[in-house]
Amino acid sequence: MSDLLKQLDAVLESRKRESDAENSYVASLHRKGLNKILEKVGEEATEVILAAKDAERGGDKKAMIAETADLWFHSLVMLSHLGADSQDVLNELARRFGLSGLEEKASRTKD
Amino acid sequence: MSDLLKQLDAVLESRKRESDAENSYVASLHRKGLNKILEKVGEEATEVILAAKDAERGGDKKAMIAETADLWFHSLVMLSHLGADSQDVLNELARRFGLSGLEEKASRTKD
Amino acid sequence: MSDLLKQLDAVLESRKRESDAENSYVASLHRKGLNKILEKVGEEATEVILAAKDAERGGDKKAMIAETADLWFHSLVMLSHLGADSQDVLNELARRFGLSGLEEKASRTKD
Amino acid sequence: MSDLLKQLDAVLESRKRESDAENSYVASLHRKGLNKILEKVGEEATEVILAAKDAERGGDKKAMIAETADLWFHSLVMLSHLGADSQDVLNELARRFGLSGLEEKASRTKD
Repeated sequence: MSDLLKQLDAVLESRKRESDAENSYVASLHRKGLNKILEKVGEEATEVILAAKDAERGGDKKAMIAETADLWFHSLVMLSHLGADSQDVLNELARRFGLSGLEEKASRTKD
Repeated sequence: MSDLLKQLDAVLESRKRESDAENSYVASLHRKGLNKILEKVGEEATEVILAAKDAERGGDKKAMIAETADLWFHSLVMLSHLGADSQDVLNELARRFGLSGLEEKASRTKD
Repeated sequence: MSDLLKQLDAVLESRKRESDAENSYVASLHRKGLNKILEKVGEEATEVILAAKDAERGGDKKAMIAETADLWFHSLVMLSHLGADSQDVLNELARRFGLSGLEEKASRTKD
Repeated sequence: MSDLLKQLDAVLESRKRESDAENSYVASLHRKGLNKILEKVGEEATEVILAAKDAERGGDKKAMIAETADLWFHSLVMLSHLGADSQDVLNELARRFGLSGLEEKASRTKD
């Protein structure tokens, strides 16, 4: 599980470059542009909130977890669209919490 | 970096139980309850969207990364509040993308 | 224009009761339930924000107005779903701003 | 009640121009700029959603009405900031629903 987000970054990056946009949801998001990607981020945030409220009153906890996965996934697509990735976000969280694991990305020339 | 989210889960879990709520932002969120936590999730999603729009037109990419960290952080607090954690979300993402085949779910193509 | 929102309340109320849900977007929202209606509220709020950011940098002001109409429209459907209407909101705004026009609805027994 | 929104437009317009920004919430929003105004729109949309979910399970309907008033109010400030007002939005709603026939736009049936 440990490097799951790093693997996911790589998958997202390769799909971003795919020529056959028809077959890839990720490629189609990039093709439609940032507004479409951000609409999905807003939409999924709303669905997380609704699923959490339903979980609070005894609803399905799995739905809340699935919606949070959707939210994180679309924020990863957004990061990729703008030339960043999950490691940037994890570095920021590590820095704030003084946690170990803070590493500088080798390829940090893009910012 | 690999286990950063797992470390963060542990930090959040310990702060959730802290008796001295005055000194902990996390404990104070739990004390105020789910609505307050979800308000923060909605607020941070909006700030991610605004920072991404500003990054698109040449603004600071670091602001977008910091706001995404805020969004993920508050969704971790939400998960913790409802008895789940980052590993549940990563498992869900791993499941969707497969262990090796890494395939997106079929229903994703509809949007 | 003056009673436009009141007219719209009446339209929404009649569509809410329509048996032929297939032919009415409003009836289909009520049938799908509150979560679907609130998903639309969240979605339209995101689209308002994106359209406003685009209008800020010289984009089409009409898009922002159209998205705001969508947001207000779906919040009217939400109010109707929960037994309230635009007049309740306008009364609240009138009260806060000390504006004239504050009137008590004849049928105020529903709350 | 009929011209309440028009009255509110006038109040908002006059406060926008106020020199004494210290004493006016509206003037302070304009001074802080569009991002701050849009943060409030996103924040209030989230609070509407939470209040509607609470009203659904027997909570206070008044809180939902008050949050909707907040949402409409901040969208009026946004319109004013970008050189539009409530009448633009009402015109758009009137156009969609027809002057007498009151018909919804065709594209609404797709969702």
